[in-house]
Amino acid sequence: MNLILSQRALKLTSSVIREILKVTERPEIISFAGGLPSPETFPVDRLLASTESILKTAPMPALQYGPTEGYLPLREWIAARHSTASMRIDPADVLVTTGSQQALDLLGKILIDPGSRVLVETPTYLGALQAFSLSEPNFVSVPSDEQGPQPEMLTNDLLHGARFMYCLPNFQNPTGRRMPLARREQLAQVAIDAGLLIVEDDPYGALSYDGEVLPTLKSMMPEHVVYLGSFSKVLTPGLRVGYLIAPQALHRKLVQAKQAADLHTPSFTQRIVYESVKDGFLDSHIPKIRQLYGQRCDVMLAAMREHFPRGVTWNRPEGGMFIWVTLPSGIDSMELLSKAIAQNVAFVPGEPFFASQPQKNTLRLSFVTVSPERIQRGIAILGALLARECGA
Amino acid sequence: MNLILSQRALKLTSSVIREILKVTERPEIISFAGGLPSPETFPVDRLLASTESILKTAPMPALQYGPTEGYLPLREWIAARHSTASMRIDPADVLVTTGSQQALDLLGKILIDPGSRVLVETPTYLGALQAFSLSEPNFVSVPSDEQGPQPEMLTNDLLHGARFMYCLPNFQNPTGRRMPLARREQLAQVAIDAGLLIVEDDPYGALSYDGEVLPTLKSMMPEHVVYLGSFSKVLTPGLRVGYLIAPQALHRKLVQAKQAADLHTPSFTQRIVYESVKDGFLDSHIPKIRQLYGQRCDVMLAAMREHFPRGVTWNRPEGGMFIWVTLPSGIDSMELLSKAIAQNVAFVPGEPFFASQPQKNTLRLSFVTVSPERIQRGIAILGALLARECGA
Repeated sequence: MNLILSQRALKLTSSVIREILKVTERPEIISFAGGLPSPETFPVDRLLASTESILKTAPMPALQYGPTEGYLPLREWIAARHSTASMRIDPADVLVTTGSQQALDLLGKILIDPGSRVLVETPTYLGALQAFSLSEPNFVSVPSDEQGPQPEMLTNDLLHGARFMYCLPNFQNPTGRRMPLARREQLAQVAIDAGLLIVEDDPYGALSYDGEVLPTLKSMMPEHVVYLGSFSKVLTPGLRVGYLIAPQALHRKLVQAKQAADLHTPSFTQRIVYESVKDGFLDSHIPKIRQLYGQRCDVMLAAMREHFPRGVTWNRPEGGMFIWVTLPSGIDSMELLSKAIAQNVAFVPGEPFFASQPQKNTLRLSFVTVSPERIQRGIAILGALLARECGA
Repeated sequence: MNLILSQRALKLTSSVIREILKVTERPEIISFAGGLPSPETFPVDRLLASTESILKTAPMPALQYGPTEGYLPLREWIAARHSTASMRIDPADVLVTTGSQQALDLLGKILIDPGSRVLVETPTYLGALQAFSLSEPNFVSVPSDEQGPQPEMLTNDLLHGARFMYCLPNFQNPTGRRMPLARREQLAQVAIDAGLLIVEDDPYGALSYDGEVLPTLKSMMPEHVVYLGSFSKVLTPGLRVGYLIAPQALHRKLVQAKQAADLHTPSFTQRIVYESVKDGFLDSHIPKIRQLYGQRCDVMLAAMREHFPRGVTWNRPEGGMFIWVTLPSGIDSMELLSKAIAQNVAFVPGEPFFASQPQKNTLRLSFVTVSPERIQRGIAILGALLARECGA
């Protein structure tokens, strides 16, 4: 058969993370490789009550085709939740997406031509690199430090022709870092001065361990920002309900792209989310997630202090699901992974999170789905392995 | 702000049908414009039992992230359902999609470069034109008659460089026509001889009024066909669960594109579908849908014979949800629509279903969501309007 694939298909590769996850499904593996939220936090009873209520009282619209923009009560709830004293979000700006991964796909479609410049953090979320890649951009890695991307590095040369900058200000995947308030204000000023569109991806924003929430970039410059949110980390990911909030000029095009992509996000899952959150449920539920994740993070950090050799460094996250580890230069975390898996411990090498010039001596650890006892055991094994690798 | 949209975004337009549907949601409108299945057929009790069973017995995997390929038991069920004496479908070839609309989006991504030739029927499904358009193909309309696309028109010139041909052999949207067996065999022979990839979209295949099911193109040339199926018309569309069956060389790329598009179709909706269909439920459920749709089709056809003036012609569908009407040349169905809506009747003009050279004197009628009494009243109004337009 004369099978001719598109240019973008020829460049497609599978996510290294997802390939690794297949190996690490074996029960004997202590896996710090996951990006999954802890199922202990899934509010099963609440979701059961929501589904029963929907199917017993108003099943037909939940089972029928629906509007591309999403279920209006859910859009209104999202708009209200993100409105602040200084910024009112209009429900008309909200588009419900099939997980926030779809928001990335839609943004790539409407904003990127082959070769378009797209600015990303160093490192950045792998799933965004994958989604945008289908539109064949030219990624530019913005130099970043432990506070996030460095605004002073956004020179005119670097900004020239950039379609947008992709940012994860809160507990970024993969580094777990959070952009402090001053850094946000600097970045917002640069974006406003340069007329730069910002895509602010915020799946972990609610998960600060001490409950402190910093202002979003969206709240600092509403017309310059497309904001991406998700119910995956605060409710449950298996429903695949995310959303984006976009200025109207973009919103209209995003709706058209969404219509072509899957007509609309399932009517049923949108209503389950709405029924579950509408009366303030998340205000009591999210603190439980924060507490669980904060405790597990503490356990891992303590174990790392005890077992990791000198020369290995890492951050202390204020929220979210990840710790970022930097090994002595010269140690390739991809090679380390094979040795770790041989000892039944897994993590994700840092390399695939870099759009260019990967730092091969980095890795990501997730602690949220692992019990404290297994965290301690896994980190001890990894520490011993690292000690040998570092020649300690 | 320096907002620069992609070339494909500049070309995007909204579906005329969906814009019309917004108007026709007013209860006083008798709408033959819908493409929605009848909610009377939605098996609410069955779906409620399925959701309760899932959330009470094994909630966690239904609420967690899952594999991009889809829920394995559902993929195995789909493979078994489409296997025949002469063709065994491997579950590894099945990819679950977020409605079959997403399958179209994924196929566009991996098969179409800007300017690539894509063959389509005349007319064809509007949603496919929209989905493929994002990859900026050069559509070529294959001359078609009441039996579907004409194989003898697939000349070497027309086939040259074609990435694939998009076909809807069963009760096509918008015409309702079905490709007879002999036509299928001719088309398969041409495709095999020319090495042409076929995308076979089959959402309505099970809905023949007399229960007769013709062999799929897939079954005639498995390695040449990507087959698209859906639960939207036989179970319920609000769950957005569809699937595609593709040869392995394509399957791998489709999985990668799907991963970037939305990670995976909701774990929960996939399990609801599986729980609902796994023990043969559709074998007793589908005949009820066939009967209802067949009866309503008969009511509409009888009313059309009574009320439509000479010079107006239409087909007599053997299944599915649509009747295709051809008006005397010179009557523009888009203009007719304004007059019809003023009299509280709606339909879909034929124009947007043509990739090129639209036949403006055509329109699509759907009968499945309208009661017999309202079908008769609406067709009488439309007939009187047509009689005036035709100068009868």
